[in-house]
Amino acid sequence: MTEYKLALVGFGGVNRALAQLIAERNESWKKELGFTLKIVGVTDLFLGCVIGCEGLDAGQLANLPAVKGALAQLPGGDAEAFNEAVIKHSGADIVVEATFTNPVDGEPATSFCRWALEGSKHVVTTNKGPIALHAAELKDLARRNNVAFEYEGSVMSGTPVIRLAKQSLAGSSILGFEGILNGTSNFVLSSMEDGLGFAEAVSKAQELGYAEADPTADVEGHDVRLKVVILANELLDAKLNVSDVSCKGICGLNLSDIERARQDGARWKLIGAATRHADGSVSAHVEPRLLSNDHPLAGICGATNAVSFTTGLLGTVTVSGPGAGRTETAFALLSDIINIHQSVAHN
Amino acid sequence: MTEYKLALVGFGGVNRALAQLIAERNESWKKELGFTLKIVGVTDLFLGCVIGCEGLDAGQLANLPAVKGALAQLPGGDAEAFNEAVIKHSGADIVVEATFTNPVDGEPATSFCRWALEGSKHVVTTNKGPIALHAAELKDLARRNNVAFEYEGSVMSGTPVIRLAKQSLAGSSILGFEGILNGTSNFVLSSMEDGLGFAEAVSKAQELGYAEADPTADVEGHDVRLKVVILANELLDAKLNVSDVSCKGICGLNLSDIERARQDGARWKLIGAATRHADGSVSAHVEPRLLSNDHPLAGICGATNAVSFTTGLLGTVTVSGPGAGRTETAFALLSDIINIHQSVAHN
Repeated sequence: MTEYKLALVGFGGVNRALAQLIAERNESWKKELGFTLKIVGVTDLFLGCVIGCEGLDAGQLANLPAVKGALAQLPGGDAEAFNEAVIKHSGADIVVEATFTNPVDGEPATSFCRWALEGSKHVVTTNKGPIALHAAELKDLARRNNVAFEYEGSVMSGTPVIRLAKQSLAGSSILGFEGILNGTSNFVLSSMEDGLGFAEAVSKAQELGYAEADPTADVEGHDVRLKVVILANELLDAKLNVSDVSCKGICGLNLSDIERARQDGARWKLIGAATRHADGSVSAHVEPRLLSNDHPLAGICGATNAVSFTTGLLGTVTVSGPGAGRTETAFALLSDIINIHQSVAHN
Repeated sequence: MTEYKLALVGFGGVNRALAQLIAERNESWKKELGFTLKIVGVTDLFLGCVIGCEGLDAGQLANLPAVKGALAQLPGGDAEAFNEAVIKHSGADIVVEATFTNPVDGEPATSFCRWALEGSKHVVTTNKGPIALHAAELKDLARRNNVAFEYEGSVMSGTPVIRLAKQSLAGSSILGFEGILNGTSNFVLSSMEDGLGFAEAVSKAQELGYAEADPTADVEGHDVRLKVVILANELLDAKLNVSDVSCKGICGLNLSDIERARQDGARWKLIGAATRHADGSVSAHVEPRLLSNDHPLAGICGATNAVSFTTGLLGTVTVSGPGAGRTETAFALLSDIINIHQSVAHN
């Protein structure tokens, strides 16, 4: 039975949810997936770090108190986060990077990925920063070190979009995409359709845990812009930088805009989109768009995310599902690991 | 450069569209997909057959007149369809089965698949009959002969559903699915929402080429039932026979039902669904269901198809796209061949 040793970098909700899944499902994965997972290291700027080459107790980790330096309580633990040591020297086969997104330079996550790849460890991540800003470099580094670099969760949590496009739609000639890629802003727009003003709708999203204390990145489109860069580069071979994508959020929309749309049989949605032109160039935008009710994205309501691919052979294909959530995003990491297992098993 | 030799069995719209794609795209596939395709045999009950081990002209085949025995006009051609000879002795690596669906016993398509698999040829098919009725036997035959048996196009033409579920959603714990799996009946229901009566809506679907001269299999749910059997057996390991799936069509719905639903913020849809229960058993149904407008399938209008998967780790994930069409279904065959290529390349 194949066993993969994991080092978890960042131990917030997502990697905790992964630890919980390992605690609950490792036995059943033997038969279902053909492998098991063992956590050999954890590091987190707030919680400290721990290395346990023989395997740490996943259930105990999942239930670790969220107090500063908590990992020091475990055998082999320390209140300080020795990230580089855990990544390079815990004996991990796969480094699971799930720290916060830094939209400016992708750090420190990008360095974490670099250290792992240079050490010939596979990397799976849910972090938009390294992918939107440094994917080409990191993919090249992975190739040179003969390891995998997977990041399905960087766009729509566990809802398959990158692999759906690259595997299931291979050969279909993807010409572009339109997506609802931010659950918070879509929830706000849906709440405004129910009559709430913009500020009230944002407050409601915060109460329900969909929006951060500072909702700027969500409602101004900055979060969507990173995802558009990732998808355009991945699916359309676009080589875009973040600054190449025009970006306008939903703050300018008011209730009368929403109502006028309704009367016209349409809906406002915050859309991230990219199109490949006949000359091979790709243009990409984030902006509120008025979609008629028969548009495949018009019915995507609340915090759900969705992407419609425009293809040469198939017309429009749309996938929708959760775009956030701890377990949902942890599943993205699991699906990346499954993909690595299949590649390794085949090679 | 890998080249796969194809024998096309059944030369109606789908395999003609595949021949057209080969004529137009073979060169670009070298770089994009890493292989090219060569047609070495074609057989069709109406058109006759042809064998050409050195490769037949795909463009010429795509434009063949649709007259009885037309393949006799080509060098190596005959007005009679020697199916077994073309399948077994044309030197094909892959047999591309796209004949008509026989919902009673799956013949003659099932025999075509058997001959090919017994002869250690990979099989790709878009045909619901062999899969709904004989998948277990044929998959076992493929395994014993160490060849692939792929049938993505048997459910929603080229829109990925089987591989989406088996590859991208692996590990997510699929608990069940609900689908709009027949474009004709969904088009009829959408037209009734626009005010047409049932009979008028069926006529309109026939005029537009969505419905057959005899629309019974579409509007009575029989077509959906075969697809539910395929998906339930494939994704839920259900071992269902066609008779295990209760089946009720849309003929009993009238305009006042549709209007009452609209007033209640809901829509009637013909749904094919299956659920795995706690004891491991699977129940499956085809029936009109009243979906509230916020259900992920409520907005699927016209001839579009869609499936919502209920998963343990991800909640609901939905994919929608075309469910029919010549080129769209030919793409399903191409995607099956891509999958075979990736398995072969890996082994």
